[in-house]
This record gives sequence, structure tokens and C-alpha cells, in this order.
Amino acid sequence: MTALTKTLKPLDGYALALGDDALISSHRLSEWLTYAPDLEEEVALANIALDQLGQARHLLGFAGRSSGLSEDELAYQRVDREYRNSLLAELPNGDFAHTILRLFFFSTYQRLLYAGLTASADGELAAFAAKAAVEVGYHHEYAVSWTLRLGDGTEESHDRAAAALAELWPYTAELFAVDEDVAALAAEGLVPDPESLAGPWSEQVGTVLAQATLGTAPSGTWRPSGGRAGLHTEALGYLLAEMQSVHRAHPGATW
Amino acid sequence: MTALTKTLKPLDGYALALGDDALISSHRLSEWLTYAPDLEEEVALANIALDQLGQARHLLGFAGRSSGLSEDELAYQRVDREYRNSLLAELPNGDFAHTILRLFFFSTYQRLLYAGLTASADGELAAFAAKAAVEVGYHHEYAVSWTLRLGDGTEESHDRAAAALAELWPYTAELFAVDEDVAALAAEGLVPDPESLAGPWSEQVGTVLAQATLGTAPSGTWRPSGGRAGLHTEALGYLLAEMQSVHRAHPGATW
Repeated sequence: MTALTKTLKPLDGYALALGDDALISSHRLSEWLTYAPDLEEEVALANIALDQLGQARHLLGFAGRSSGLSEDELAYQRVDREYRNSLLAELPNGDFAHTILRLFFFSTYQRLLYAGLTASADGELAAFAAKAAVEVGYHHEYAVSWTLRLGDGTEESHDRAAAALAELWPYTAELFAVDEDVAALAAEGLVPDPESLAGPWSEQVGTVLAQATLGTAPSGTWRPSGGRAGLHTEALGYLLAEMQSVHRAHPGATW
Repeated sequence: MTALTKTLKPLDGYALALGDDALISSHRLSEWLTYAPDLEEEVALANIALDQLGQARHLLGFAGRSSGLSEDELAYQRVDREYRNSLLAELPNGDFAHTILRLFFFSTYQRLLYAGLTASADGELAAFAAKAAVEVGYHHEYAVSWTLRLGDGTEESHDRAAAALAELWPYTAELFAVDEDVAALAAEGLVPDPESLAGPWSEQVGTVLAQATLGTAPSGTWRPSGGRAGLHTEALGYLLAEMQSVHRAHPGATW
């Protein structure tokens, strides 16, 4: 971690990681606008992107408050090494099946996570989670229905969904990784233990994959991680360069 | 007009023109996503884009129903000569002031237009307009507050707003143009007479411009039009090529 975020308290750092997941997801979904296969999906993806952006604003605001950092400072003035999102969120978009499978994995995770967070000893985080859980419930429903439709659809759609599954699966392990800070927060009842989410996640995901005739989860042992610690793929650098270009061109701009 | 839309009834053609305005506006606003100056504006512009997209879907659905054309056929399978949006909607994005001034002109117009449409003898169009009027009321509020903030802000923001005003102003005349079809529809009480909106529009816009220290409306006589008749700028061709690429690559795709 470099300058801007190295002094964050553990709970703030945790909120930042969730906020970064939401922010980066939102931007990958936004990239579909103008390119979605039909108007209905364009509206749906835009709505989900907007929900994620709203969650990101809330979480970044929470993360920066005690150290006096604004949501905009956190969003626009960090370099990639200071971003804590999971690698799953930042992978470049592929085809529509890729976006659907990613959203399916991610929304299943967020739904369990936010449900757990509603029991947080931090009242504000718990209140946020209760609202966000409703939103991601819709994202999850959308992603499940499309996963079934693609997996159990035509040969072409099945093959594309299977390819997306194979590509994305290794990255899902990182969502359940625990570091020292998170373990301490979980022990204090402030956040759910990530490892406790892994079982329900696998079960829920497995059921849908079977129904979608996409078989069982891939068995490979390559499970990349590092995003939560600021070690990202090249793709995040390009995304941030785009996202931050206007804001950085006018540092501290006022109107 | 070529094949796909030449047989539309006049009221359907009218709805198509309004729907095209909303669709193209939505896409120009979407282009800001990932590039907005801060998170608050990103959320605001995304929300407005989504409202416009929703209005477009409704209007295109209405426009195609009696001739059996779906919203997707109308959105993705027309060439630029079949698009009926005003030129104002399609002009390429400039800086943030350009987007704000365009939204200000456009939302002031849409607000008056939809208010008039709530009195339409066509019950469905009237019901749509009542809902849409509420949405564009928010767009208008947002655009007015930013027009004031930019015009009466720093020297830099004032100059940028003034430049956007000068560039966009000529294109606003087209919004109030009347052709034979629209005149007939207005005479039947189905749609508001566009000319009747011009007076209130000028008055409302003039008041805000004065308050924003942007002076009075430019006085030039060059008032381009043609969009409503399918005669567009080059910029629309590029926008449609992008927007239609995914859909056209898989004509009639099913899952």
C-alpha cells in the first residue's frame, strides 16, 4: 500500500476492498453500454452498473471518513497498487456469456457477504448491507436466469458459457481469502468470516451450473490472487487510466 | 425514409421521432460513463441516460406495434436515413459544459413536450407522458443547477459554457419545426403543436441564461435542421455503427 491508503484502519480497509470490487465491476458493466445485444439487456446491465456504483460510493465514503479522504480522492487519486478489488472484478470483458458468468459468481458472493454484514457490530455498515443485499438479490436473479438460458440454450451459447466458466473459475477463490486484518475483524463480529461464505457459495453455484448443463466446477489448482493486497493484472492499469483521466487532468478543480 | 419505417402511421412516426431523441441522447450521456469528472456526476449522468433509454424503449415499442416491428428491430435495424432524432441529440460530446448545456436545452424542451402530451387524445401516449414528465423534471433541475454553476462560476467555466451555448444554440430551432404530419396530429388533439412550445421554451431558457450571466440567446440566422426527416450529420453514422455492431453481428440470434 502506498501513501493514500496505508494509514487506513482495518475496518476502513475492508470497506475499501468491497467498494473497489463494486467500483471496478460497475465500470466493466458500463463498458457494455452502447454495445449490449438488445435494449432490454442494455437497460438491465446499466441498472446493475448503477447499483454497483452507488454501493461503491457508499463504501468509499465510509472507508475514507475517519482519515479525511473523500470518495473522489479514493476513486481517482489512487494508483493500481492501492486498489484492493479482487482480480475477478477487473478482468477485461469478453463476450456476453463472460459478463453473465462473472456476474453470476460475483452476485452470489455479494449476496452472501452482504447478508452476513447485516449482522455487523458496526451499525452503519449493517444498515448499508441491508439495503445493498436487496439490490444484489436482483443482480443475482438476473445472472442466474441468463446462466441457465445460455448454458441450456443452443450449442453455441453452451460452448461460450462453458468457456467463460473455465476462464473465470480460478479467480473465484480469492473472494474467500482471509488475511490477518480480516480475521481480526471477523473475530470482533464486525464482518463475516470470508471462509464461512465459501461453502454456501460453492453449493449455490454448483446447483445452478448443474441445472444449466454446465457440469461441475473445474478442478484445476491454479487459483490466482493478490488483488486484495494491491497486486493486479495489467488490465486494471488501463481501466484506471481511462476512469481517472478527466479528474486527474483538473486536480482539485472547482467550478 | 427507406423500407423499415416508410409505412408507419403518422402517430407512430411521431412517437418514433421522440423515441429516437431519447435513444440517441441516452447514448451520448452513456459515453460519459467511466469519464465523468467525479462520482456524483457519474451517477447523475448514468441515471439520466437510463431514464432516457427507458423512454426510448417505451416510445419505440409504441411506434412499432401497429406495424409489427419490435423495439429492437427499430433500434438496431434502421440506417441513419431512417432515424428521426433532432440533430441536437446526435452532436458529438464536447466537454462537460457542452453536455450540460445540451441537457439544459433538451430537458426544457422535453418537459414542455411531455406536459403537453399528457393531454393527448391517445390514452396510452398520455399515460406515458405523465410518467416521463416526472423523470425529465429531475433532468431539467440537474441541468439548470449546473448551467448556473458553470455560467456564474470561474472565468474558465463561464467561457466553456458560453462556447457550448454558441455551438448548440442554432440546433435548438429544429425542436419546434412542424411538418404536415405533425400539424395534422396536433389538429386532432393527439400531440401538442410544436410551435406552441417555442415561446415558453425561449422564456424559460432565457431566464436561466441571464441568471447564469451567459447573456441573451445568440442571434445568428443559421438554424440547421433535417434530423426529423432523416438527414443527419456524419456523427450519427458512427454512433449507430457502434450501437448496432453487436446486434447486427448476430441477426435474429436466439439463445
